[in-house]
Amino acid sequence: MLFHVRMDVAIPHDLDPDVRAETVAREKARALEVQRAGKWPHIWRVVGQYSNISIFDVESNAELHEILGSLPLFPYMTITVAPLTTHPSDLAVQ
Amino acid sequence: MLFHVRMDVAIPHDLDPDVRAETVAREKARALEVQRAGKWPHIWRVVGQYSNISIFDVESNAELHEILGSLPLFPYMTITVAPLTTHPSDLAVQ
Amino acid sequence: MLFHVRMDVAIPHDLDPDVRAETVAREKARALEVQRAGKWPHIWRVVGQYSNISIFDVESNAELHEILGSLPLFPYMTITVAPLTTHPSDLAVQ
Amino acid sequence: MLFHVRMDVAIPHDLDPDVRAETVAREKARALEVQRAGKWPHIWRVVGQYSNISIFDVESNAELHEILGSLPLFPYMTITVAPLTTHPSDLAVQ
Amino acid sequence: MLFHVRMDVAIPHDLDPDVRAETVAREKARALEVQRAGKWPHIWRVVGQYSNISIFDVESNAELHEILGSLPLFPYMTITVAPLTTHPSDLAVQ
Amino acid sequence: MLFHVRMDVAIPHDLDPDVRAETVAREKARALEVQRAGKWPHIWRVVGQYSNISIFDVESNAELHEILGSLPLFPYMTITVAPLTTHPSDLAVQ
Amino acid sequence: MLFHVRMDVAIPHDLDPDVRAETVAREKARALEVQRAGKWPHIWRVVGQYSNISIFDVESNAELHEILGSLPLFPYMTITVAPLTTHPSDLAVQ
Amino acid sequence: MLFHVRMDVAIPHDLDPDVRAETVAREKARALEVQRAGKWPHIWRVVGQYSNISIFDVESNAELHEILGSLPLFPYMTITVAPLTTHPSDLAVQ
Amino acid sequence: MLFHVRMDVAIPHDLDPDVRAETVAREKARALEVQRAGKWPHIWRVVGQYSNISIFDVESNAELHEILGSLPLFPYMTITVAPLTTHPSDLAVQ
Amino acid sequence: MLFHVRMDVAIPHDLDPDVRAETVAREKARALEVQRAGKWPHIWRVVGQYSNISIFDVESNAELHEILGSLPLFPYMTITVAPLTTHPSDLAVQ
Repeated sequence: MLFHVRMDVAIPHDLDPDVRAETVAREKARALEVQRAGKWPHIWRVVGQYSNISIFDVESNAELHEILGSLPLFPYMTITVAPLTTHPSDLAVQ
Repeated sequence: MLFHVRMDVAIPHDLDPDVRAETVAREKARALEVQRAGKWPHIWRVVGQYSNISIFDVESNAELHEILGSLPLFPYMTITVAPLTTHPSDLAVQ
Repeated sequence: MLFHVRMDVAIPHDLDPDVRAETVAREKARALEVQRAGKWPHIWRVVGQYSNISIFDVESNAELHEILGSLPLFPYMTITVAPLTTHPSDLAVQ
Repeated sequence: MLFHVRMDVAIPHDLDPDVRAETVAREKARALEVQRAGKWPHIWRVVGQYSNISIFDVESNAELHEILGSLPLFPYMTITVAPLTTHPSDLAVQ
Repeated sequence: MLFHVRMDVAIPHDLDPDVRAETVAREKARALEVQRAGKWPHIWRVVGQYSNISIFDVESNAELHEILGSLPLFPYMTITVAPLTTHPSDLAVQ
Repeated sequence: MLFHVRMDVAIPHDLDPDVRAETVAREKARALEVQRAGKWPHIWRVVGQYSNISIFDVESNAELHEILGSLPLFPYMTITVAPLTTHPSDLAVQ
Repeated sequence: MLFHVRMDVAIPHDLDPDVRAETVAREKARALEVQRAGKWPHIWRVVGQYSNISIFDVESNAELHEILGSLPLFPYMTITVAPLTTHPSDLAVQ
Repeated sequence: MLFHVRMDVAIPHDLDPDVRAETVAREKARALEVQRAGKWPHIWRVVGQYSNISIFDVESNAELHEILGSLPLFPYMTITVAPLTTHPSDLAVQ
Repeated sequence: MLFHVRMDVAIPHDLDPDVRAETVAREKARALEVQRAGKWPHIWRVVGQYSNISIFDVESNAELHEILGSLPLFPYMTITVAPLTTHPSDLAVQ
Repeated sequence: MLFHVRMDVAIPHDLDPDVRAETVAREKARALEVQRAGKWPHIWRVVGQYSNISIFDVESNAELHEILGSLPLFPYMTITVAPLTTHPSDLAVQ
């Protein structure tokens, strides 16, 4: 089941630099882990912004929330979620 | 080169039903044509809305505009475009 | 799997009155049908507005879109969808 | 009398961690207390957000404000309230 | 129980003039009727706009919706409702 | 001359608690003083929000600004002002 | 007493051309009349828009509403009003 | 003197096709005329939208308004104007 | 050449009080200086807000930016600028 | 390939003044470097704002993001990007 997720990151400028670096590193590790599990098939950078647009493929709403909440940058992100479904004009379903 | 495109369709309710049906049919045919050419790798329906979220893979801005402008529903759509690039946490680029 | 859905209805004032009445009647019939199937556990009227706030309980995003798209007033509604999950402070999960 | 309430939580990142933990714990205790009193029949987590969507069942506007203002996270929440009433297509009122 | 209600009126310019005049006349009659019943203690015109800001005093959400829905201009108004309660700095409650 | 005023209060969370308490106390005293002078006939709490909706009855724009600017919480409030006038459907003017 | 008023004009494109021309002509005549009475000391065109920004000098809110409502284009305008007062840095009041 | 101008075109779908075609043709002719006069040094199409972003080089605000108002599509465009000046990091002014 | 300028002031609450007082004093001095030069013919306070609405009369965009940037409160203000021109219904141009 | 980019700068007021000055100096140096490389053909100051509107001429989305991300003020800027293409009414393409 696919979801469109946009994450806009805004780390407070006065966050301790070590905490910041460590959090960003853990974020990347966790992101790779979720991708390896096949749950996060697409992640793109939005040009000019500290943001990503992603597609998640999960079993349920609960699983999606668990994944997003497990991201170390979660407290510093504005996240919007849109449930997706197959488009009738998708070549794959003709 | 990837672009994130969202299309929200709003066909006027008083459009002639035949024109409407014919336009929607041509839209689908054109969408499939662009997908077959490898320019439109993803198209999803946004749940609950007459909208799609798509990824386009084109050579240039000009090519993207040419494709979008060629869609028969173009006059009835609100389209937003965001250029994408590789995300540093994308598993594929590690 | 629960979804929060808000529907704001805006039927064009120049729609044929008979078409309007018939569409509204079919909308109600369809709404009751989906409720009887256990897919639409809550529907409330928002005070002062031609709108409802609803909770849907479905198997998948696809099923939700199919239900919403089957509503006769779908072409005249602005619909927003938010996926829900269990809240950790919900008494039922303590 | 039912009200739809959305609460978006934004605890300042530089709040003392102990104060934060203690406040969140008190919030949960108070939320359970209000639910046990039958005043807060539904609370859901919005996927991807530090937010809940809730239904309150109270005697009056005054009671609702008293409950919301008693929540320990009240100073850190953006709260929107919409009064609800029975929907004419609700299966329960046919 | 008090509610703050704002009504912005937008009658379509191509509505039949007689229908318009008759609807506006019925709106006024109904507004006076609700005021006489003590349910609508305040109504003010917003300067420069075809809008009013009103205070309603009703028994319940349901009663408020019934009153607003009974206004002949209801289909042409955007209505926003905010539940009110006593302010702790109100001179009347010291 | 009547004005509709909404005040949304947002005191910075890191304001000294004593300063905060003292400012809030002075705000209440000043609010009562203006009410006693007959200049602030209505003040209501908006349910779920640290906000009030008020009606002021003043001689001029200048007097209204002088009153609002004299409120101790003025630096922490977002204030919106709408001039009001008699509504033609007001029962009192029939 | 001064008010800042912005008027954005949007005449429906399908309005009868004669009605339109006649209404615009009456609008101008009425605008000149109010200016001659000293009630409308400033009117400027906003570059690139069918809009004006104006300053009105009136006795009361009621008078301002009466003037604005008397403008023949009133039904086709979005009007915003902001009450003004003397600025403490105005050279004229030093 | 430079101005940044964005024009979003929205021709009503029920405009007579001949009027539409003729207006669009006159728009192009006028746009070329202004460019030839050196007043409109840049015009770009925004990808995916019936919009342009332009730079105008004019003597005064009045001249800019005169040009924009002379465009045959003016009644169907939403235009936003931002005055520009030299940027201190512009290579040309080092 | 006239410009409509709105300035909304938001001085951070934790700015050093002496710096604040000194900056506000310099702002007033500079504002008077520009008015004396005939460049700032109107400045009004917006009722209920730490904001002004002003009219500037300058030779060019560059001069306007130079003036606005020279205001000591510039770093703490949100400024919006709209170029103005003569209105065809202005009594002065009949 | 052209892109329209707007950058709004908001440096936190409590940033260390030396860090601020050094960052702004590096920003200018980098901006000049990119201009010298022919990648940033236009940069204008928006009157009254700490903002620029720019045109970039790059090979790809990736290159644009690399450039924008290399700007020392990137963490303090809100950046919006719009892909551009040739306008059919551009004099240069007739």
